[in-house]
Amino acid sequence: MSVEWLVGVDLGGTTIKIAFITCSGDIVHKWEIPTKKSEQGNKIPSDIGRSIDKKLIEIGETKSKLIGIGIGAPGPVNDADGSIHVAVNLGLRNFPLRQLLSLETGLPVVVDNDANIAAIGEMWKGAGEGANNLLCVTLGTGVGGGVIANGEIVHGVNGAAGEIGHITSVLEEGAICNCGKSGCLETVASATGVVRLAKNILTSTSTPSILRDAGNETNELTAKLIFEAAKARDVVAVNVVNVLAFHLGFTLANIANVLNPEKIVIGGGVSKAGDILLDSVREQFIRFAFPRVVEGVELNIATLGNDAGVIGGAWLAKTKLATTEEMFICLKERHSNLQKILRKNINSKKTLNINY
Amino acid sequence: MSVEWLVGVDLGGTTIKIAFITCSGDIVHKWEIPTKKSEQGNKIPSDIGRSIDKKLIEIGETKSKLIGIGIGAPGPVNDADGSIHVAVNLGLRNFPLRQLLSLETGLPVVVDNDANIAAIGEMWKGAGEGANNLLCVTLGTGVGGGVIANGEIVHGVNGAAGEIGHITSVLEEGAICNCGKSGCLETVASATGVVRLAKNILTSTSTPSILRDAGNETNELTAKLIFEAAKARDVVAVNVVNVLAFHLGFTLANIANVLNPEKIVIGGGVSKAGDILLDSVREQFIRFAFPRVVEGVELNIATLGNDAGVIGGAWLAKTKLATTEEMFICLKERHSNLQKILRKNINSKKTLNINY
Repeated sequence: MSVEWLVGVDLGGTTIKIAFITCSGDIVHKWEIPTKKSEQGNKIPSDIGRSIDKKLIEIGETKSKLIGIGIGAPGPVNDADGSIHVAVNLGLRNFPLRQLLSLETGLPVVVDNDANIAAIGEMWKGAGEGANNLLCVTLGTGVGGGVIANGEIVHGVNGAAGEIGHITSVLEEGAICNCGKSGCLETVASATGVVRLAKNILTSTSTPSILRDAGNETNELTAKLIFEAAKARDVVAVNVVNVLAFHLGFTLANIANVLNPEKIVIGGGVSKAGDILLDSVREQFIRFAFPRVVEGVELNIATLGNDAGVIGGAWLAKTKLATTEEMFICLKERHSNLQKILRKNINSKKTLNINY
Repeated sequence: MSVEWLVGVDLGGTTIKIAFITCSGDIVHKWEIPTKKSEQGNKIPSDIGRSIDKKLIEIGETKSKLIGIGIGAPGPVNDADGSIHVAVNLGLRNFPLRQLLSLETGLPVVVDNDANIAAIGEMWKGAGEGANNLLCVTLGTGVGGGVIANGEIVHGVNGAAGEIGHITSVLEEGAICNCGKSGCLETVASATGVVRLAKNILTSTSTPSILRDAGNETNELTAKLIFEAAKARDVVAVNVVNVLAFHLGFTLANIANVLNPEKIVIGGGVSKAGDILLDSVREQFIRFAFPRVVEGVELNIATLGNDAGVIGGAWLAKTKLATTEEMFICLKERHSNLQKILRKNINSKKTLNINY
């Protein structure tokens, strides 16, 4: 029997990312298709099924090569039956994703929330590698989160765990959030939030700033532009980064006091700001976290980028779906990889860094 | 072979509570001995061992009746070897509790943090009964916490998970906390914090209050007195309860947004205030929590009181130490209890509520 692959799927609002991944977490094939939201989402499972079939034909493999599918969906998932409770971006409600996708593909399917799956991806192969207690926060259009405690995803009682974006961090005069509350972390730490913070400062002060042109003339002020300006020490931009870092550091410290994680991974578009963001967040984190919690933790920027979802999906498929026989083949594959690495290194005498 | 017992031990700063408990979680014998802090705590394991022996003789049982010991200690515990990292109240540091207690008693021992064990106790037999995702907060001299996710205690990477008391909840002009930071939840939600809040209001305003006598003359203002005054609608006392409820509700909501617990249990001396506290906390909780998180959760006052520790210890001993044979006997015992309950209820036609 040949070495088998896992299928990782990341179901997003505009594209569906699909990948064939080895049991060691290496991506073999990766592609994406557009997300068709018509017919209450009913086209999604068949589109994924057809796309997988097409890819198999293209590369000359059969479906027996695939162990199962792990898919991340943008919304709370019902753990018992793998249905999506509600996914606002996709217009889905009580959508039986596991059942439909399994029918379409003839493969076993495991479904989880996309932020959770991204966290799992980072735990397996990214910035959270090997951490059994891990907190991931994704700073994108919104702010999402994934929590891993004792090596397991924390879903909570109705799949709403990890709603880090809706922790209140602005107590006084916070902006209104999409969730209906005000002052949520999302209102200051998302891409949208960062732009709003900058616009507020630009309109309420006369501080000179290179952001004024972008802000006023083309009306295309972006989070990316703000971070670039902050790196160039633009006073308004630095001010925005400080406000963001204060609220993110404060919130992450408070969560860390409860979970005592080994690693905290910051991902999503806003995290591309890199060190200028990470250094300020770390400073605020240390200010607010319990000393022993600070000792135990590492704050990192996510490393998998857009691949976190498909890799996390593959991990779920591997741990939740693979049969004992398939696990044995996975293990043999890893053993053979290990032997290859060992053989290569015996002569070069490099330090070995093997990921089990 | 006869039905066996578990030993639950709650190691506190002034007393050590010990109990023999059935596999169904019922206390058969319960007693306490003073905590001797001399000789760097070295007397503690032998005192516990001797006390258990004495009790066995007193009730005419032998040690073979006991499956093992689960003990809660006031400080972070090293999961790997059951040693206490540091227990400030007891003057212990890197104290090999599991090893010493096992040597003294000849029984297997499992050690955990006291707040975690109290949470487990409430999950098994108390206000958190049956909740696999549970948050417990203890409002005593300090503020402690225990987190259960996916049915397991969350310890974190170095045993500091659940440090709810050191979440920052007063952002501006917070009082200095024992941990060195300022504005921690403990500074407003502990018994000490509540008294300090009241004293601040009494000295900075001239609002009439029945607390002024206690506060000024005998200097014996207590949390208990403050809650009694609040029930009698004393303006200052109501103000104190509102401040406490705001900070506790805010903090619990933020934690719940991350963990999505099924139940939140509030215990400790301050929780004896009951509904006047619970109702205000619930109001603030709803204000700050994510709507789906609010839907899934129940806020309750702890019901086990001082027994939570020994019952939680027994649960740990049962799940971590019992052999398959012992588990089988436990199961038989529960089965026979169940049969008794069934027999009783068949005629009375009461609604059955059986705790498995």
